[in-house]
Amino acid sequence: MTDISIRLGELVDRFGGQLIGNPDIQVVGIAPLSDASARHITFLSNSKFRSQAESTQAAALILSEKDHALVGEAYQGARLLTANPYVYFAKAAQYFNSLRARPDRLGIHPSAWVSPLAQVAENVSIGPHASIDDECVIAEGAVIGAGVAIARGVHIGAGSRLYANVSVYEDCIIGARCVIHSGAVIGADGFGFANEKGKWIKIPQTGRVLIGDDVEIGANTSIDRGALADTVIENGVILDNQIQIGHNCHIGENTAMAGCVGVAGSAKIGKNCSFGGAAMILGHLTIADNVHISSGSMVSRSILEAGQYTGFYPLAKNADWEKTAAIVRNLSSMRDKIRYLEKNMKAQGLLSGEDDQ
Amino acid sequence: MTDISIRLGELVDRFGGQLIGNPDIQVVGIAPLSDASARHITFLSNSKFRSQAESTQAAALILSEKDHALVGEAYQGARLLTANPYVYFAKAAQYFNSLRARPDRLGIHPSAWVSPLAQVAENVSIGPHASIDDECVIAEGAVIGAGVAIARGVHIGAGSRLYANVSVYEDCIIGARCVIHSGAVIGADGFGFANEKGKWIKIPQTGRVLIGDDVEIGANTSIDRGALADTVIENGVILDNQIQIGHNCHIGENTAMAGCVGVAGSAKIGKNCSFGGAAMILGHLTIADNVHISSGSMVSRSILEAGQYTGFYPLAKNADWEKTAAIVRNLSSMRDKIRYLEKNMKAQGLLSGEDDQ
Amino acid sequence: MTDISIRLGELVDRFGGQLIGNPDIQVVGIAPLSDASARHITFLSNSKFRSQAESTQAAALILSEKDHALVGEAYQGARLLTANPYVYFAKAAQYFNSLRARPDRLGIHPSAWVSPLAQVAENVSIGPHASIDDECVIAEGAVIGAGVAIARGVHIGAGSRLYANVSVYEDCIIGARCVIHSGAVIGADGFGFANEKGKWIKIPQTGRVLIGDDVEIGANTSIDRGALADTVIENGVILDNQIQIGHNCHIGENTAMAGCVGVAGSAKIGKNCSFGGAAMILGHLTIADNVHISSGSMVSRSILEAGQYTGFYPLAKNADWEKTAAIVRNLSSMRDKIRYLEKNMKAQGLLSGEDDQ
Repeated sequence: MTDISIRLGELVDRFGGQLIGNPDIQVVGIAPLSDASARHITFLSNSKFRSQAESTQAAALILSEKDHALVGEAYQGARLLTANPYVYFAKAAQYFNSLRARPDRLGIHPSAWVSPLAQVAENVSIGPHASIDDECVIAEGAVIGAGVAIARGVHIGAGSRLYANVSVYEDCIIGARCVIHSGAVIGADGFGFANEKGKWIKIPQTGRVLIGDDVEIGANTSIDRGALADTVIENGVILDNQIQIGHNCHIGENTAMAGCVGVAGSAKIGKNCSFGGAAMILGHLTIADNVHISSGSMVSRSILEAGQYTGFYPLAKNADWEKTAAIVRNLSSMRDKIRYLEKNMKAQGLLSGEDDQ
Repeated sequence: MTDISIRLGELVDRFGGQLIGNPDIQVVGIAPLSDASARHITFLSNSKFRSQAESTQAAALILSEKDHALVGEAYQGARLLTANPYVYFAKAAQYFNSLRARPDRLGIHPSAWVSPLAQVAENVSIGPHASIDDECVIAEGAVIGAGVAIARGVHIGAGSRLYANVSVYEDCIIGARCVIHSGAVIGADGFGFANEKGKWIKIPQTGRVLIGDDVEIGANTSIDRGALADTVIENGVILDNQIQIGHNCHIGENTAMAGCVGVAGSAKIGKNCSFGGAAMILGHLTIADNVHISSGSMVSRSILEAGQYTGFYPLAKNADWEKTAAIVRNLSSMRDKIRYLEKNMKAQGLLSGEDDQ
Repeated sequence: MTDISIRLGELVDRFGGQLIGNPDIQVVGIAPLSDASARHITFLSNSKFRSQAESTQAAALILSEKDHALVGEAYQGARLLTANPYVYFAKAAQYFNSLRARPDRLGIHPSAWVSPLAQVAENVSIGPHASIDDECVIAEGAVIGAGVAIARGVHIGAGSRLYANVSVYEDCIIGARCVIHSGAVIGADGFGFANEKGKWIKIPQTGRVLIGDDVEIGANTSIDRGALADTVIENGVILDNQIQIGHNCHIGENTAMAGCVGVAGSAKIGKNCSFGGAAMILGHLTIADNVHISSGSMVSRSILEAGQYTGFYPLAKNADWEKTAAIVRNLSSMRDKIRYLEKNMKAQGLLSGEDDQ
């Protein structure tokens, strides 16, 4: 790491916030509350860590006005007040990172292959053994990693970054400022087959994948092309690793999916939704805006009302699970037993009072 | 898209069916009922969309005899009657696609590496930065995408297509007319280790992967080689994306698996089965022919009888789930309470009538 | 396969054990009990297959002292007694394999690109179209497969093997004798974003991935780099295919994870744990040493006590599942009904005896 330091005053000039302390204090980076040294700035984004804030060694602390009132005098460094300390941290960290990161190697690596029929802007970076086929358009500032394979007719928007060994199939469109991590596959065939007497007849997948701006796609995630129409990922969507998006899905702006999520074909998912890790969404469902699905949940029906939804089996010690699972398998006999008891009590005039169910 | 049109009469000549209408009507492609214009042919494969069929703008409609009788006069275009409209659609779409798709670039790309000890048929297509190692056999018509890595001793059957960045390990055999999508890994080591006082000792995985004809394998799917014997994927199997097939599995003809399915080692799966997305199959199980597993289900025992099986926790609003999950955790106390009530009623002679469980 | 045979006496010299039989007997390989011919050695690692051991055709049988006493005279071949037959099998199989496997092609393939600023030991193997960027260190005996992309500043330890199309991001450290399978992605960005009025602001992921010695990582598995600190995989960890490890996780020595497991960010997992296929671990959890999680289980809380834990919904015929799932959804009304019955019985003085819950 090179030795770069930034004045607190510069951070305020760039990202706003109210500084309580000396603007000439220099910090060399951002660190968590517990790891920060006297040369770091840190942040308090969750009030439950307030006691850690009081004992941090950091030179400066990003925090909310509310926490400012509650973090005691024990913390004597500078304070940088802002409405959303976590967002402030993100922006400051991006700035530190932009100063430190190795610059991209501009130009086309001699081992790359770029079709003479592709249009490639001047100031791009194309890595070793990348291939860019006919009719592609690579816009300015794009960074194409080693071994990336871009098939015919693909557009990559300005400033987008594809890490090593990404594969993009024919005619897919990727917007500006996207980040696509290694091993991701954009535009493979959707899973469409007709069954003729037991044998599967492939349905050609002739739609594309259309990805908006500012989309991030994780490592080894796959997004299938549409069957007749297109698969659409709107602006600002963030997808973690190992995700599967089936053909003809439509994912609304700023929706976030954690690792290992699977979305079957033709799901229509709204804006600003979130899906916890390994959540699964069946095909042809509609999910409204602002729906939040807990990790490990199977979404087997449309959800038309915003809110948090969950469906996974609670963990237990294995011995307890075995006992409970046996009861689950026989729940209908338990229900019948209750009905039998109730029927007998009713027959004998033993039930009075209000049934509280 | 080039401007290609096809006479309805030509479709009937190629794929059969009974045409009610003018065989000289020309169509330029296939579209869904709702999107079709007067230059398209469309199809009705599910009777519940019959009302859409009546209002479609399409020049021609593929449908069954039964739906033909029920789709009213409001639809005035040509009708193409067939026993299975979805299969007919698939075949017609394949034909349209074959006319429109860009032709493969024949020959070996100058940036590819092909071992002089490999046997490569004349009319193949080998893409940029592909590598084909010693003792491989690449049969006629095979299409090897950019960055595909084929290790020593692999056979690729006639007409098979491997998309960009597929990896095939040593000695695996892939049949004819297979399609393998980007990021798929064929023949990595199975997960076999012996535990010696806490440390793992690797068991060499010396079997192969044997893949039959007409198999489709999705993006980022992995199929492990066998430990001592081989892993076998029979003819006509279709696997979606992000699937894991463990070592020594045997998957019978025409079985289909949707995305994110996992199959542990040594599972023996029959023919014509289907597995919904994210279904998981434990190791050393036997699954009979014609078994259908619902999405998200954990198969923890062998299934010897055909049928549909399911096992996932039902989704609920999070608040309801929390309440229900707490009860699930305590089901055994609920069962005990019922037994307690029953015992007391019995002791007091309050139970009569037949226990209906 | 070349025709290599080994004397039983040589096996005993290398791996110990007590031979009952002629040390000059030659075997050509290891096979399972049921497949072994008179030229094979086989092993009995699970007593339930004892009857198969009695009828095996193998020339020699690796088994425990206990099983030796119980396998009858029907088996007349040589016996090789050892405390752990499965470990013995693993070691002997490694030895057979080392004699048979094709040797790696030493040197740097002419189509590979190695930065002049990288340090590469003499006796490595670097495959076609691999790329090794500035400041990398590749230690002796490392094998780098076709199409592997290694970004700047990465260290690969002695004797480690990266199969085709692996991607390693900047500054990650991989120890000695590791095996990393095709499609694996080491060091992609963790999933870290701050939400500002609905839009996601990326948090730079500036930590690394640190992988110890003797680690195996499966095909298409991804391990994210840390946000500020590092993601750590300790010595001897074994990870199967299609696994996702989130940023800042710490996985203790010799822990094993089967395919399709997902671990969210900042999980701290102990030593010698095991995770069955598709188990999911939520973020910021702590898992003690020697915890074993069954396949398909969602771990939603920390586990501080060693033991076996399980949480998946039991599989059933679909019709039964539908009935049971409906009851699960309404478990709280069932509980209320029981309370209602109990209240009435109590009010009427009908409850006596001990409540056995």
